[in-house]
Order: sequence, then structure tokens, then C-alpha cells
Amino acid sequence: MQASALYTPILGELALVEERLAALRRPEYPSLERILESMLSHGGKRIRPALTLLAGQLEEYRLDVLIPMATGVELLHTATLIHDDVVDKAGVRRRRPTTFVEWGAGPAVLAGDYLFAAAADQVAMTGNQRVIRLFAQTLMTIAQGELGQVFAAHRWQANRETYFERIGAKTATLFATATESGAVLSQAPERTVQALREYGHNLGMAFQVVDDILDFAGDEDELGKPVGSDLLQGTLTLPAFWLVENYPGDNAIKRYFQNQESEDLSEAIETVRNSPGLEEAQTIAVSYGDRARSALQDHPAGPTLSALFDLIDYVLERRI
Amino acid sequence: MQASALYTPILGELALVEERLAALRRPEYPSLERILESMLSHGGKRIRPALTLLAGQLEEYRLDVLIPMATGVELLHTATLIHDDVVDKAGVRRRRPTTFVEWGAGPAVLAGDYLFAAAADQVAMTGNQRVIRLFAQTLMTIAQGELGQVFAAHRWQANRETYFERIGAKTATLFATATESGAVLSQAPERTVQALREYGHNLGMAFQVVDDILDFAGDEDELGKPVGSDLLQGTLTLPAFWLVENYPGDNAIKRYFQNQESEDLSEAIETVRNSPGLEEAQTIAVSYGDRARSALQDHPAGPTLSALFDLIDYVLERRI
Repeated sequence: MQASALYTPILGELALVEERLAALRRPEYPSLERILESMLSHGGKRIRPALTLLAGQLEEYRLDVLIPMATGVELLHTATLIHDDVVDKAGVRRRRPTTFVEWGAGPAVLAGDYLFAAAADQVAMTGNQRVIRLFAQTLMTIAQGELGQVFAAHRWQANRETYFERIGAKTATLFATATESGAVLSQAPERTVQALREYGHNLGMAFQVVDDILDFAGDEDELGKPVGSDLLQGTLTLPAFWLVENYPGDNAIKRYFQNQESEDLSEAIETVRNSPGLEEAQTIAVSYGDRARSALQDHPAGPTLSALFDLIDYVLERRI
Repeated sequence: MQASALYTPILGELALVEERLAALRRPEYPSLERILESMLSHGGKRIRPALTLLAGQLEEYRLDVLIPMATGVELLHTATLIHDDVVDKAGVRRRRPTTFVEWGAGPAVLAGDYLFAAAADQVAMTGNQRVIRLFAQTLMTIAQGELGQVFAAHRWQANRETYFERIGAKTATLFATATESGAVLSQAPERTVQALREYGHNLGMAFQVVDDILDFAGDEDELGKPVGSDLLQGTLTLPAFWLVENYPGDNAIKRYFQNQESEDLSEAIETVRNSPGLEEAQTIAVSYGDRARSALQDHPAGPTLSALFDLIDYVLERRI
């Protein structure tokens, strides 16, 4: 299933978001335009802006504020990707050289800053102080989550609590903000706002666990980036926990983190791929999906709710 | 003259800004706390938050919104310094290793992102959509200005128009936003808002021209960073224009930009130091100072206006 097939209730609205993103590719400086072109137009699944629009559709559907909010959410996501690639020194994303590799660290840092600011400007257009502050605090949380990951690099001991905290901060927060802001802007009652936040948070957790599974089990051609990039960065993710918990004395991950020899990396990837860790992680992703579904159980049936439920299945089954 | 001596009308208020900055040094993650400690507590002149407070004092003095705004302005400035040092690979600032050198590019990028977000959160607390959007657009302009500088690096032909555009974007915009937002938040009439914006812009231009002079003529011990760092980054600034305009065929700057030999750099610095370019730049800084003063000529005399005028003299005469 393609993500776009799930967006039937909001196709026209997503096109308006795309128009706003395209307008940002024409800034004053031509060099910035060339940098932004590749990141704003290629291959994004647009799942986060779709969440804002769908959440906003459950109550009073106010497109004048939902479109800028959805655009801001996607811009924030794009900016964090650009900066993450600088932090990770990553070479490839969505089958293309990263901004970091193509333009260098300096331009990538500044292009990301520009997009953070553009995101803030879009969200400011809503004129809603609650979502504006929520949005700013979301970026504070994401930056702290990423920083936690950097400082934990090459520690091979599995710590599930820290892992879930970290993916909560770096990924689920923005999903939760996407749905919460949609609900707030559509004047939903507080109970609905909290239910949509809960849905978004759990969907985001499932999304990141699946991301971490695909980093081991995915197909490089489909993914558009090399497998094993988390281990390469020194980041221990959920699918690897089975191995390090069951073979604490000696295992390929420990060897790789200690010596950073590429043969240990290949062996570590292969061992995790063949371990029960992958299935265990999938089970955990499914349980987050279940929690996302339960959060919306009191909502009336209809095309919007169906789309939100289908998104859970999409996130759990996706191969890219 | 110390900057702090100019802040007499707002000493208590600046202390409240310092309290807010200090509170940000205690985030959830201890590692972030250590990174922020050095940047938020050492050696900032606090000129930008002072401008917001002074501008806000000319009309209805609403501290509940001016304090978060002033804090946001200083945080944005600090975040841009941290990212600039990543972009420039700069080693020393305010007599201390930069965040980039002490912690590495990744943590510096993420700490800057955290501060951008914290800045946006402070400004969002004002609940004033005009200043929130102004603030976001200011960061868009700064990022574009810095990017222009990166892409112009090592071009030795002097282009005054581009230079003034660039320092307008990277420096004067935030000064203008600092004063404009103070005026807007104090419900000043639009004519006063524009006058304070004009004052802030011209003060910022003077500030940056003096910064560029000090980069050649300053004392390394006083400055807390090496002289000649602009040329080292490949950035041609106003004091160097006399040399490259008068000796276009061959000069030490052209040689340094082409070959990047350190002996050419030393000669380039020495030649500019002894050229009329320094005095010419100072004359231009003074003329920006005059424009800043004229912008406020219709305002009633009083301690606030005196402080704003004294700030012009301080900016023009400062050695650090």
C-alpha cells in the first residue's frame, strides 16, 4: 500500500501544503533555492502533515489554520533531517546524496536553520498561542533526544528504557504534535485533543520501531539508503537488544563498537537479521499500533477515522 | 565605557532576563546543560535584549511581554553564534573554546537548535502574532545572509553592495527586530515603531562595521579571539575594500584567497591595518550611527532616549 492511497479524505488539502512547500523553494538567494529543491520535493511521505489535516477533520475543519500548521510540521521534519545528516555525517537519503554531502556542513546547517524559521513562521500564521508554544517545545524535545543519541553512541549495553525515551523524544513528539495541533486548531474538546495526542504519540513510536527494524531488515534499493546505518553511527536500536542481552560477554556489536572494524559491522548486521530480535521488535511495534487504535475507540466511524486506522496498518507494514 | 553602564534605566529588567537564561541552563539532559552553560553565561554584552527593553520603555512599559521577548532575542543571537562557529569551524570565542571545538559539530548543531526553539518559545509567550512572525522571519533572513557569506567565500573582488546587504541580513536584522518588537509590544504608534526599527537597523549596521574593523585592528587579548579571522574564513569585509579596489592586479588578499598560504594572510592583515581602509570604514560606521540618531530625533528627551543615544557612542567606540 502506498501512503498516498490513505490520504483520500485530504488529497486536495495536501496539494495546498505542497504548494506552500514549493513557494519556499523560491527564496531570495538562488543558492538556497538549489539546496532546498532536493529536500523539499523528493520522496517525503508527508505522513506528518496528513496527520494534522486528518486530526483537524474530526471536528470543525478550519483550513485557513490547518494548512499552515501542516506545512510547518513538514518543514520542521525536513529541517531536522537535514541537521541529523550533519550530525551523523550521513551520505545518502531517499536515494540521493544528503544536503551535508552535496553542499557541506555549513550550508546544511544554515539551510536547516532557514527551514526551522520557515516552519515557525507557518505555525505563527495560525495565531494560536497554544500550538505555537507546543511547536517550539517540540523542537526543544527533538534536539534533546538527538543529543541523547549522540552522547550514547558506541555504548553497547542495551538499555530499553533509554531507547524508548529517546525515540519518544526524537520521533513520537512530532507525531503527537501533528495530531494534537490539528485537534486544537479545529476547536476539539480537550478529551478529543488528548486522545489524538495519544494516537499520534503511539503511532510515532510504532513508526520509529519499524524504522529501526528496516535499518536491519530492509532492502537497500527500496529504502534508498544503506542498511545498518544505525550501528554504523554507534546507535543501538531495539532489534539489536536481543543479541546484546543474550550474549553480553561477547557479540559482534560489542566488538564493532569497541574496534570499529567493518567486518564486525557486517557480522553484527547479519547476526541481528537472523536473531529473534527483529520479530520481538515487530511485536512491540504492533502493540504501539494497538495503543494508537485504542486511543481513538470512542470516535465516531467515518472516512477520517478509517484513514487514521489505515495509517496504523501502513506504518506497521511499510517497507520504506 | 562598559556596556553595562549604559543600562541604568533597565538594570532590574536585564537581571530578569538573566534569570530566564539561567533557567534554560537546567534542561532535562545534563549533557545539554554543560554545553549551554558556557554559551549562556560568559561574556555576552546583552546589547540586543537591552534594545528591546529600552524600546519598550518609550511607551507603555509591559514587562510581562518585554522580558520573554528580550530573552528570546538574546537566545536567538546565542544560537546563531553557536551555528556560525560550526559553519566557520571557529576555534575560539570570548576567550574560550567554541562549542564546536569543545563538543564537536553534532552537539553544537543540536544545542543551537535547542536554543532556537527555546527562543521561539519565549517569543510565543508574548502572544503577539506580529512579533512572533517578525521573529521567525528574522531567523530566515539571518540564515540567508550567512549562506550568502559562505557562498561568497574566497572571492577577492570587493563588492560593497553585497557586503552591506550581507551585514544587513546577518546582523542588522536582529537589532531592528529587537527594537521593533519592543515598540510593538509597548503598543507604540506605528510611526514610533518604524523609527525604532530604523534606529535598530542602523545601530546594527554600525555594530557590524565596527566588528569588521576590530577583526583587523583589535587587540587579540581584549577581543578574546584571533584577529584576521574573517580573511581566514575567506570573507572580505569593508576595511579590506580599499586595498582590493586600489590594487586590483596584485595584493596580499588576492594571493591569500588564491593560495591560502599563511604568510600571505599575515601580510594581508598587516597591509589592511596600515591602509586607509580602516579609517574609511570607521567613517561609514559613524554615518550609520548618525542615521540611528536621526531616526529618534522626534522623541522626547529622557533617560531612555539618552541610553539609546549613548549606545550609539558605545557601539562606535567599543574595543571588544
